[in-house]
Amino acid sequence: MRPKILAFAGSARKESLNKLLVRAAAAGARAGGADVTLVDFLEFPMPLYDGDLESGSGIPAEAARFKALLVSHHGFLISSPEYNSSISPLLKNAFDWASRPAPGEKTLVAFRGKTAALLSASPGDLGGLRGLVTVRSILGNIGVFVLPDQMALPKAHEAFGIDGALKDEKLRARAEGIGRSLAEFTAKVVAT
Amino acid sequence: MRPKILAFAGSARKESLNKLLVRAAAAGARAGGADVTLVDFLEFPMPLYDGDLESGSGIPAEAARFKALLVSHHGFLISSPEYNSSISPLLKNAFDWASRPAPGEKTLVAFRGKTAALLSASPGDLGGLRGLVTVRSILGNIGVFVLPDQMALPKAHEAFGIDGALKDEKLRARAEGIGRSLAEFTAKVVAT
Amino acid sequence: MRPKILAFAGSARKESLNKLLVRAAAAGARAGGADVTLVDFLEFPMPLYDGDLESGSGIPAEAARFKALLVSHHGFLISSPEYNSSISPLLKNAFDWASRPAPGEKTLVAFRGKTAALLSASPGDLGGLRGLVTVRSILGNIGVFVLPDQMALPKAHEAFGIDGALKDEKLRARAEGIGRSLAEFTAKVVAT
Amino acid sequence: MRPKILAFAGSARKESLNKLLVRAAAAGARAGGADVTLVDFLEFPMPLYDGDLESGSGIPAEAARFKALLVSHHGFLISSPEYNSSISPLLKNAFDWASRPAPGEKTLVAFRGKTAALLSASPGDLGGLRGLVTVRSILGNIGVFVLPDQMALPKAHEAFGIDGALKDEKLRARAEGIGRSLAEFTAKVVAT
Repeated sequence: MRPKILAFAGSARKESLNKLLVRAAAAGARAGGADVTLVDFLEFPMPLYDGDLESGSGIPAEAARFKALLVSHHGFLISSPEYNSSISPLLKNAFDWASRPAPGEKTLVAFRGKTAALLSASPGDLGGLRGLVTVRSILGNIGVFVLPDQMALPKAHEAFGIDGALKDEKLRARAEGIGRSLAEFTAKVVAT
Repeated sequence: MRPKILAFAGSARKESLNKLLVRAAAAGARAGGADVTLVDFLEFPMPLYDGDLESGSGIPAEAARFKALLVSHHGFLISSPEYNSSISPLLKNAFDWASRPAPGEKTLVAFRGKTAALLSASPGDLGGLRGLVTVRSILGNIGVFVLPDQMALPKAHEAFGIDGALKDEKLRARAEGIGRSLAEFTAKVVAT
Repeated sequence: MRPKILAFAGSARKESLNKLLVRAAAAGARAGGADVTLVDFLEFPMPLYDGDLESGSGIPAEAARFKALLVSHHGFLISSPEYNSSISPLLKNAFDWASRPAPGEKTLVAFRGKTAALLSASPGDLGGLRGLVTVRSILGNIGVFVLPDQMALPKAHEAFGIDGALKDEKLRARAEGIGRSLAEFTAKVVAT
Repeated sequence: MRPKILAFAGSARKESLNKLLVRAAAAGARAGGADVTLVDFLEFPMPLYDGDLESGSGIPAEAARFKALLVSHHGFLISSPEYNSSISPLLKNAFDWASRPAPGEKTLVAFRGKTAALLSASPGDLGGLRGLVTVRSILGNIGVFVLPDQMALPKAHEAFGIDGALKDEKLRARAEGIGRSLAEFTAKVVAT
């Protein structure tokens, strides 16, 4: 069975460098045999997680739509910015909403047994590396097999051409390699 | 000079156990000689951090108000829930907005050189311990002196009486001790 | 191909609780279809890693023997104690020696693309949980696929019978389940 | 009272770049009013921590000497290499031996309430940054106030002159600044 990969950036910003980077990696996942769905958090505006909101009116519609996408895919390709050395609140918020069980549902159905690969892009010298430590740790703790290989792209504001593609061929191959590895890993582990 | 401590929970939930716990610790900080301002995130409803929003219309008013409170205090007393082994999006979001500089302002003026002490409350067996790892790491990385001593309260749903106070005297002393230690540490390090 | 699993504890202590726990998990790995080699660090006494020692006389014989075992197996089943909230120096030392390349050898040949599952045993209430955070992070950073599921056994000094087996059936099933999951995961990911 | 700072590198290597870096920082601590004792782990050769060794013959003499130095100082200035993204086994081993209580002694007497500042030097691009995450976390968990400011020196093999000093004046000022900050912080927090 072809693995189904959901790809997204951990930022809603229109000119997000992470949106460009995840697109590059998604091309590699497709080349590696996966069906890739690329989504944008602009289409999933969620309120901040709030237990009172949840017990009052349930999981908000946009969060439920995002969760359903996680549920229906085998693996996740994520490029996420680093804010203050850690995860973006947008990404953490989406994970937290998606981790909430509907009545009668299995715990962490959107995450357990799934796969993920991580990338980050940043104008700085570390490329957002430290944010991925948090993302990796969270996903592992909720049952996701996170690929050891990852990519942190430093000086990302200079890395993309006007066509939105990585200018440097080696960097493009590296981003695509992450996507391809995720496709192959997911085919072995989940989509069987 | 008396140290000024800002105390808050990392949850907006009305019956948040962390709001009860931070209140207990705040009493200790007052007994330790600090002026304590206790605030509730219900009063600071912020949108999710978004770079486009910021460049379009600046820091939202509620985020700016919260940031101004951080700026005008020497130390922070924080009790925060653990969601999916890490920080709550509400707290991360508040930190990220507060880390954004106004024009001409010093980097991380709300955080650098300040102090903090951490607590967490959870119905589970670990008391929210793992969430504090993320909170501690973030605060340290943005220049806050975080007290090594912390308190993670397990089975927190059974820990408080109807008056909102910790029923067990030893636990109450422990929470107050965290607050008192923060007051004393802040008096030495910042408020001089 | 049957997956080959190397199982060991991160302690050399004769009555190490982690040796008992890894043995329980190893039984599960065998039941899951793996060939399991159980080794004891008592048989691999290594000096502390020292760059001068390495450049003077190469990788010590015991370290080289341990590294060769890692190289010849597909996956690692590790039960490791927590010392001061982190990894044991014995285990970190073994990893560091094993990460040193022989002349002409591929980088991290003992680790890259391998699998691992983690357990810990401790007399305390957290079961050594915090030490596994470090172990997991290190292994992930050197290219090992670490199973998200892990087991931290609290009050471990009371958990084993005089036959060295876990007295509680549920705990035994849980330890065996970790081993079995590693066997199945390794069969899919590596041993193909 | 003048603060007493113990300075050391987390490597025993004769030409350790971290020994050079901690020396630069030590100069800053002295300029900041501290009495600094600079020691070298070559003088403290310890066996790997082993519970059987400890219960059989107690804390080894070299470990006890190192622990006594920690006990008799208020703060620690540490420059430590990164091995496989984490702490060196030599440093972890020294911490673990020093954390063992002598009969009748207070828990963690060598660490609780002390201060520390961290540096790292590495030939790589990240300067050993990731190793400091582990070191910082461990020290915080055993009661040490770790200064938020730290220094990770990339390309460290090109950074020092034949006199062993940092060639770049800005880097030297930065290393000295870490030492000076530790001196001042320790004067406020501990040595009063």
